[in-house]
Amino acid sequence: MAFEKVKRSDNYSEWYNNLVKQADLAEHSAVKGCMVIKPYGYAIWENMQKELDRMFKETGHTNAYFPLFVPKSLFEKEEKNAEGFAKECAVVTHYRLKADPDKPGALMADPDSRLEEELVVRPTSEAIIWNTYKDWIQSYRDLPILINQWANVVRWEMRTRLFLRTAEFLWQEGHTAHSTKEEAWAETRQMLDVYAHFAEHFMAVPVIRGMKTPNERFAGADETLCIEGMMQDGKALQMGTSHFLGQNFAKAFDVKFQSKEGKLEHVWATSWGVSTRLMGALIMTHSDDEGLVLPPRLAPIHVVAVPIYKTEEELQAASDALDPILASLKKAGLNVKFDNRDTHKPGFKFAEWELKGVPVRLAVGPRDLANGTVELARRDTKTKEIVPLEGLSERIQALLDEIQENLFRRALDLRAAKSFEVNSWEEFEEVINVKEGFAWAHWDGTSETEEKIKELTKATIRCIPLEAKEETGTCVLTGAPSKGRVVFAKAY
Amino acid sequence: MAFEKVKRSDNYSEWYNNLVKQADLAEHSAVKGCMVIKPYGYAIWENMQKELDRMFKETGHTNAYFPLFVPKSLFEKEEKNAEGFAKECAVVTHYRLKADPDKPGALMADPDSRLEEELVVRPTSEAIIWNTYKDWIQSYRDLPILINQWANVVRWEMRTRLFLRTAEFLWQEGHTAHSTKEEAWAETRQMLDVYAHFAEHFMAVPVIRGMKTPNERFAGADETLCIEGMMQDGKALQMGTSHFLGQNFAKAFDVKFQSKEGKLEHVWATSWGVSTRLMGALIMTHSDDEGLVLPPRLAPIHVVAVPIYKTEEELQAASDALDPILASLKKAGLNVKFDNRDTHKPGFKFAEWELKGVPVRLAVGPRDLANGTVELARRDTKTKEIVPLEGLSERIQALLDEIQENLFRRALDLRAAKSFEVNSWEEFEEVINVKEGFAWAHWDGTSETEEKIKELTKATIRCIPLEAKEETGTCVLTGAPSKGRVVFAKAY
Repeated sequence: MAFEKVKRSDNYSEWYNNLVKQADLAEHSAVKGCMVIKPYGYAIWENMQKELDRMFKETGHTNAYFPLFVPKSLFEKEEKNAEGFAKECAVVTHYRLKADPDKPGALMADPDSRLEEELVVRPTSEAIIWNTYKDWIQSYRDLPILINQWANVVRWEMRTRLFLRTAEFLWQEGHTAHSTKEEAWAETRQMLDVYAHFAEHFMAVPVIRGMKTPNERFAGADETLCIEGMMQDGKALQMGTSHFLGQNFAKAFDVKFQSKEGKLEHVWATSWGVSTRLMGALIMTHSDDEGLVLPPRLAPIHVVAVPIYKTEEELQAASDALDPILASLKKAGLNVKFDNRDTHKPGFKFAEWELKGVPVRLAVGPRDLANGTVELARRDTKTKEIVPLEGLSERIQALLDEIQENLFRRALDLRAAKSFEVNSWEEFEEVINVKEGFAWAHWDGTSETEEKIKELTKATIRCIPLEAKEETGTCVLTGAPSKGRVVFAKAY
Repeated sequence: MAFEKVKRSDNYSEWYNNLVKQADLAEHSAVKGCMVIKPYGYAIWENMQKELDRMFKETGHTNAYFPLFVPKSLFEKEEKNAEGFAKECAVVTHYRLKADPDKPGALMADPDSRLEEELVVRPTSEAIIWNTYKDWIQSYRDLPILINQWANVVRWEMRTRLFLRTAEFLWQEGHTAHSTKEEAWAETRQMLDVYAHFAEHFMAVPVIRGMKTPNERFAGADETLCIEGMMQDGKALQMGTSHFLGQNFAKAFDVKFQSKEGKLEHVWATSWGVSTRLMGALIMTHSDDEGLVLPPRLAPIHVVAVPIYKTEEELQAASDALDPILASLKKAGLNVKFDNRDTHKPGFKFAEWELKGVPVRLAVGPRDLANGTVELARRDTKTKEIVPLEGLSERIQALLDEIQENLFRRALDLRAAKSFEVNSWEEFEEVINVKEGFAWAHWDGTSETEEKIKELTKATIRCIPLEAKEETGTCVLTGAPSKGRVVFAKAY
């Protein structure tokens, strides 16, 4: 089997879909809009989970689990949240199937099992969780509550794309409760930083930290902070959000606590989440026309070794030479694979591991062994060199660090090359439509202008950056005064 | 706040419910039949997951993820499986909510969003997975497929109990595909052994490995293997199952492969799972009237240290003395807690950590410090001793191993004391109704007798043990010939 390749320059979107499929990451399922995450894709997600979970725990959070279903009457309680998600909710109405009298062998929802109250499959868990927190919180001594949940959620989507937008997806959702506004704000900010750190240091994806405009805010939040990455095609991808929920859910669910001073006050809340969407960001930031390119810190396999041989003796010699090196790499905590399949030729194996994005590949044949060398290939730059067997383990470990850094730097360079300060509408349109990148532009702060720009160009305000230079100016569309530049882009 | 205690001897069932609640493990949610797993309970489940996941990977399995929903037409395909689960399926019929015109502020399932085909919330994933495997399998070279999934499933239950029987629960489900019957059998057997090893060496719960009778088999399986534990009240709890599915799902979903010989054959299958039910087994095997008792290998906190002090200086002295010991325990991979809360008295803390089942407790006050000693208390035996600070870290590590072993031995002794070979109906009834234990009895092998016995005593055949001595005899109810003893008991 040869791998079917699509070039990014021909059709970026088709390149993405094809890569997800060819690299065995995920596929569409028989359920409209839902995906199957295949073992190789899931292994990358597990590595993401492991690092994120560690970071959550290091910042004082514990995991818990809340129900998949939300009774409709609870779902309704926080009105904005309910309104925001109502149009994409899967609804359970029956709890039993029975034989369909009209169709032999077929089943039907048993009309006698209709639920008195419909259940919503959680699109997010604020409602069910705040209804629970109500019973957990009486006094300031019960606060803060710092809980995270790893779960599946369902948001019915008509147009889906693997990892980027699916009806069911996997995510984590943090839900915290605090006695003061300041503390809740600090938590919102802290979790944004945790996400940014993860994106940059593990995914090797540079992100802009910012605040969403009211239009783009999470339904039910007072403020939504986000991290935004730039994909290779210059489009933005929202990679994580951290919401300051104010007292909205506490008020909707009547959650009050007695303060140190003995006063009864509503609790302050945050929620924050990242999802399997991060897989899409990872793929679209680093990969190339040959396949996946994975940052070493998230790669399921770090090093693959391919023996070049004709006889059993040559295979044995290659194995003998590589064994101590692979053992030493394993001892250092790396995952290594010795690909001695006799069903495939080396060329096929090279292409397959390239497609799967393994950061480092070794090839060793009789001539290498005679010289005490191996061929060392790196996936990110596609460069090869002949290096001595001696000191190879240390060399590879250093190389993995270098690859991790190089991927980040490369993504940073690409973003720099596709980011523009624009000061006129002409420049704005050129950046969005021709240069296809991020436009740092002045905006008059109104939803009307934001919507008008979206209508004209499909570009949205990705965020109001937290770390932007102070600069007043005039709105790129209306000429009205502006207090600072915001980031516009087309987005996934 | 004092802890409300219920004694096992007064009401075992109430003791269980109360303990799950008081020890902060789980609680009922606003959704009928669904539970909230609280942080402390979830931390134990995470420890279980971690060990099981490691064992699955060591036996060659990888994780993946399949959709939450199963289209009705797929669900129907394997008839026995569909029939077995139809009565407990949550059914999604709509994908949108809209404002209810009759009730201001309320939402209703939008009639225009009715699904053409209903979706079943997975009660188990054979159907959706085998429909997927169909596309993955063409040749013997594509086999075996060894996949596991960590997921939530829903089986609508009318009478629920926390962890033991809930409408939604968390579990893992392995689904493997093989080219031969022998290989599928070996897999079924292997995973049973993995479960038994986990139960005995991590949960410290002795289990009987056995085969289910046709009556008790998983719907759609040719054979179901199981591990059965005995709870303190002499009832059985099914802790895990490993199913040999034969070619049933391959036939229902038309999954064939080309063999080495070029013939087209149906694929052989297994599936196997354990769930949050294991939490119930853990609690009911070891805990006592004072609260939880946790085996060290699954305890979220291994050692808690409580300083006894009046002055800040005394607290500091206790802290100084304990610091190096706690640091050394942490370095050895243990979780330790120094409980220096100034809001609670030592007595309260002792009771709380006892309730939470922390295996080892240290208490240290000024007198201890003067003598260079601490008080060391073990949770399993509730014994205390004064021991020197010197060598304490090593002593505690050895003690944790001893506790782990002691819990297993104690459970084994209890099971031995409540297991009886019975040879007459009178003896059988006495064991089931008066002695309340396991009855090892001869059975004539018919479903009729099995059902009759269930009707008469509520006892079911827990399993046909895999490792029983060979012995012919006569059925305890009918007197008909029997080829060996099976295990009868009342069960959770």
